[in-house]
Amino acid sequence: MVKITFPDGSVREYNEGVTGLQIAESISSRLAQDVLACGVNGETVDLNRPINEDANFVLYKWDDEEGKHAFWHTSAHLLAEALQELYPGIQFGIGPAIENGFYYDVDPGEAVIKEGDLPAIEKKMAELAAKKETLVRQNISKADALKMFGERGETYKCELISELEDGHITTYTQGAFTDLCRGPHLLSTAPIKAIKLLSVAGAYWRGQEDRKQMTRIYGITFPKKKMLDEYLVMLEEAKKRDHRKIGKEMDLFMFSDTVGKGLPMWLPKGTALRIRLQDFLRRIQSRYDYQEVMCPPIGNKLLYVTSGHYAKYGKDSFQPIHTPEEGEEYFLKPMNCPHHCMIYKNSPRSYRDLPLRIAEFGTVCRYEQSGELHGLTRVRSFTQDDAHIFCRPDQVKDEFLRVMDIISIVFTSMGLENFEAQISLRDKVNREKYIGSDENWEKAERAIVEACEEKGLKAKVEYGEAAFYGPKLDFMVKDAIGRRWQLGTIQVDYNLPERFQLEYMGSDNQKHRPVMIHRAPFGSMERFVAVLIEHTAGKFPLWLTPDQVAILPISEKFNDYADKVRQDLKKYDIRAIVDDRNEKIGRKIRDNELKRIPYMLVVGEKEAENGEVAVRKQGEGDKGTMKIEDFAKNIAEEVHNMINKW
Amino acid sequence: MVKITFPDGSVREYNEGVTGLQIAESISSRLAQDVLACGVNGETVDLNRPINEDANFVLYKWDDEEGKHAFWHTSAHLLAEALQELYPGIQFGIGPAIENGFYYDVDPGEAVIKEGDLPAIEKKMAELAAKKETLVRQNISKADALKMFGERGETYKCELISELEDGHITTYTQGAFTDLCRGPHLLSTAPIKAIKLLSVAGAYWRGQEDRKQMTRIYGITFPKKKMLDEYLVMLEEAKKRDHRKIGKEMDLFMFSDTVGKGLPMWLPKGTALRIRLQDFLRRIQSRYDYQEVMCPPIGNKLLYVTSGHYAKYGKDSFQPIHTPEEGEEYFLKPMNCPHHCMIYKNSPRSYRDLPLRIAEFGTVCRYEQSGELHGLTRVRSFTQDDAHIFCRPDQVKDEFLRVMDIISIVFTSMGLENFEAQISLRDKVNREKYIGSDENWEKAERAIVEACEEKGLKAKVEYGEAAFYGPKLDFMVKDAIGRRWQLGTIQVDYNLPERFQLEYMGSDNQKHRPVMIHRAPFGSMERFVAVLIEHTAGKFPLWLTPDQVAILPISEKFNDYADKVRQDLKKYDIRAIVDDRNEKIGRKIRDNELKRIPYMLVVGEKEAENGEVAVRKQGEGDKGTMKIEDFAKNIAEEVHNMINKW
Repeated sequence: MVKITFPDGSVREYNEGVTGLQIAESISSRLAQDVLACGVNGETVDLNRPINEDANFVLYKWDDEEGKHAFWHTSAHLLAEALQELYPGIQFGIGPAIENGFYYDVDPGEAVIKEGDLPAIEKKMAELAAKKETLVRQNISKADALKMFGERGETYKCELISELEDGHITTYTQGAFTDLCRGPHLLSTAPIKAIKLLSVAGAYWRGQEDRKQMTRIYGITFPKKKMLDEYLVMLEEAKKRDHRKIGKEMDLFMFSDTVGKGLPMWLPKGTALRIRLQDFLRRIQSRYDYQEVMCPPIGNKLLYVTSGHYAKYGKDSFQPIHTPEEGEEYFLKPMNCPHHCMIYKNSPRSYRDLPLRIAEFGTVCRYEQSGELHGLTRVRSFTQDDAHIFCRPDQVKDEFLRVMDIISIVFTSMGLENFEAQISLRDKVNREKYIGSDENWEKAERAIVEACEEKGLKAKVEYGEAAFYGPKLDFMVKDAIGRRWQLGTIQVDYNLPERFQLEYMGSDNQKHRPVMIHRAPFGSMERFVAVLIEHTAGKFPLWLTPDQVAILPISEKFNDYADKVRQDLKKYDIRAIVDDRNEKIGRKIRDNELKRIPYMLVVGEKEAENGEVAVRKQGEGDKGTMKIEDFAKNIAEEVHNMINKW
Repeated sequence: MVKITFPDGSVREYNEGVTGLQIAESISSRLAQDVLACGVNGETVDLNRPINEDANFVLYKWDDEEGKHAFWHTSAHLLAEALQELYPGIQFGIGPAIENGFYYDVDPGEAVIKEGDLPAIEKKMAELAAKKETLVRQNISKADALKMFGERGETYKCELISELEDGHITTYTQGAFTDLCRGPHLLSTAPIKAIKLLSVAGAYWRGQEDRKQMTRIYGITFPKKKMLDEYLVMLEEAKKRDHRKIGKEMDLFMFSDTVGKGLPMWLPKGTALRIRLQDFLRRIQSRYDYQEVMCPPIGNKLLYVTSGHYAKYGKDSFQPIHTPEEGEEYFLKPMNCPHHCMIYKNSPRSYRDLPLRIAEFGTVCRYEQSGELHGLTRVRSFTQDDAHIFCRPDQVKDEFLRVMDIISIVFTSMGLENFEAQISLRDKVNREKYIGSDENWEKAERAIVEACEEKGLKAKVEYGEAAFYGPKLDFMVKDAIGRRWQLGTIQVDYNLPERFQLEYMGSDNQKHRPVMIHRAPFGSMERFVAVLIEHTAGKFPLWLTPDQVAILPISEKFNDYADKVRQDLKKYDIRAIVDDRNEKIGRKIRDNELKRIPYMLVVGEKEAENGEVAVRKQGEGDKGTMKIEDFAKNIAEEVHNMINKW
């Protein structure tokens, strides 16, 4: 018999050699249908792999990354099988699962594979999947592997095999197709019900520019046709909402290789938006008794040796800054917590001073490979809406409740009402890898779970996902087109208070160590604005949007009147611009719609004579003519009502 | 005859061999009395030096750095003369003039010179000065110099002489004292009417720790006793106002060697102050149509190669940041202009888009030797309230007028009403060293002078003080104890638009190069706050100060009521803290006076019963009891009236 320990800590006994699928069946037949792979002692494996010893065990379905990964990895093999039939003699490179789907790099020899060929390949894949072929895993010696792939002329595979260690080489076979592969895979191709090949691109073999250019085919598959249809609609909509595209159209931000890759520069309209977001959060934080600080953009190496970040990240980060004299070494600040720990240490603290809530809009720099950079969501410099709460262990739950309130206010006031959470707790078994007392962990974990219950927040518990220094709560927001974004985080930390030897004087007149909580409702200003753009398609809430009103004189004759209107609106704190270009009014309307400006005021002779404006609302068109002052009062009230909600 | 050209460009002819004093006498006898040194073709020289060729000429009085410098340099010799009489056998090191006074490093051999000895030395100096001894300059060969100082046992002087080039060695003699010296000096010790020796310190010979420790005597002198008295009062007052001391007492900012020397960390109260200053300037700037941007803290080396900063400052700055892969090099941003030039370049610009006013609260890092660091006034990381105005050449004057308005609003609203300006123009003669067309320079220089006249701003014109890339206007503020601080700057720049190839499409449909104007009313947030602290002694204007009100419960029994008062005040946007420590009320009042909190509200049984507070005003004491709401309304109105002035 073997002892199988499930994520919630419960234990069942099974016969030695039991498989993941059998365990699933022992729980429910429905589960056995849905399960795609399983985890055995931290390794993801096929559902038919026998388990011969006691194990920590977890089942993976479609909603788990590991489940999707197996599904798409098998789909990559299915693609290869189809290509082998359609393009005899084709050679294969690598074919991994990726975040959304999979790809395979192939060398079709003389043949050329173009976008137009993809439907035929899809069709072949569907035919093969309908055969419900099982995937068979085999161990193979290095010599045999080289022989087998060599005979088939697979030079790329042979190159890969030559670098592997003998005794650890496996193949997977379905139907007539055998691939060099470590797995894991689905048991068969049967669950692959909906297939879409998305694009063809060139990719250098092994990413090296001096090697052969392969053909990379991207695809995605689903267990249901409806899921694919929804995905394709979402993809189309996502393209329209791409924050990089809208950011350019609305003049929100820019990048420049001269300044540096992945270093966003916020243009005036983006900056106005960002300042408004910051002021909004400042207002909320002040209500919750946060105190803001400002720290320098660098820190001495000693700071990061103390925090432990130097040992852990020193080599992979931006390299140290040396002073021209005096032999000092500094690092670009990669996070704000070490500075905040030094602020905590600056004064003696008593139990009555806690919780101490130190907030900072702190700009940090982290090195990312240039190939990984993506608009505002993956950058090398970003500003966290960071805060560190130093509290007593008995205050953790209350602080979680307060932070959850703030995050909830932030999300809902931005129209991101659809969010849920993930609670990351300790592994139930290997507890030696966590820092901090068992008692404090218990207290904090219970606090988080209870806080979620009290707030009625839908939260999924993940065991073993906690950092070594503390449990955490992550917020996932679902945007207007159904995509999930990880935004806010609340993270307990027992490590930094230890490393910085932080203390407070207790009511017992003894020294105690505070608990530290890291939290960021936006996550980062850059990422949040990117999500907000993609969620709203650039149509920001009126109170937040950079330009609330565009004034469009019908000819240059009325530019002066347009400017008078702008000045009048400014008195009501309404942000307006004048489009005084020498263009036709139709063109002006189209251009300002592209800028997503909520209101357009067309002004000509009649309006100038009567002190009026002709109002157009974004997406609704003509709203009639009114006095400047009436329009201003309406808008000011609309904004006022929004702001006063929170 | 020789042609003498004065700073204003006027020319007079004099006999060959004329001296500075004679030229002064030829203008007015009063001037001849006041003049201390003169400048001949850029070199400061004694007033009795014969001028044998055509020269650019300037006279220096007490108000000129060069005049004071000669005065204090001669005073250092007077100190040495006195020491030679009082301590026979004393050896001399170096004795320069410094920013405020002078010092002499001496080796008194067996003798010890202590603070207590200074009055006797002062007395001797006064005696000698009363003799009105003339200073006589002599050329001397290196051999003769070594012989003369060697015979007197002056090993330090001999070491200095041994490093000098023969033919360029001079001595100055007054009375029985002869010093190795290049000059320049006063004609005699007669003008030295008031003498104060300030302190004694140790200083290694030539700053090297392995050399002899000398005795350094600091002193200051004035042409009038009254000036010395005022200076000593100011010095005493300055000590009390030291921003480093007050910054600690008020918890405004901190430094930590673990974070790094010269890297200020703004504590919550300092941050609140700084944010208020930033928001204040934002409000003014928005009225003047500035647009704010936000740029990353680093820039690629290419950016600074383009700007020319790399070639000029690369070696002496914080050294480059290397990426762990990809071989990129970045620099900590030492100024914001190169980033802003890239923002300008991001869109095509037309003459109608100008002026474009790009503002940023930009944090920059500049390496300074740790010995040079001083509180917030000399740091390694600071935030400029920077802006760059890109305009057409014909817009320069108007932009200067607008910036001068902003600076004037900033200074007066902070209670810094006493300020004047310095206009730095080109050298009248050597014009080849300046970049930009003669026509544009003429236009800009005239614009600055006219703008100052129009605004009635007291401005001193300095020829030859312009940067190679453009003329500028500096603002000097006189603080409450009479010290002058250089704060705001407006600087024209023809260089960066050239280096970044900036362009705009003119009304003539041709491409033109814009003019760039750098400006910073505060200068930097750090420096400005330091000056503001020293000017107000920490008693900031009510609208600006971090905590406006401290609520002091007379015992713990009334802590809850105190907190209710705090909450009530918050509704009026009044920033209040509760001092709920278990201390006597007298102690609480004293401590909160030290924190410079404008209002203190004492609350006990009577107040809690009646919903009242007993008001104390900083510096004025008890103001009687009133209802919470009445107090809140009064304060809110006081703040409102201040803010609405600008």
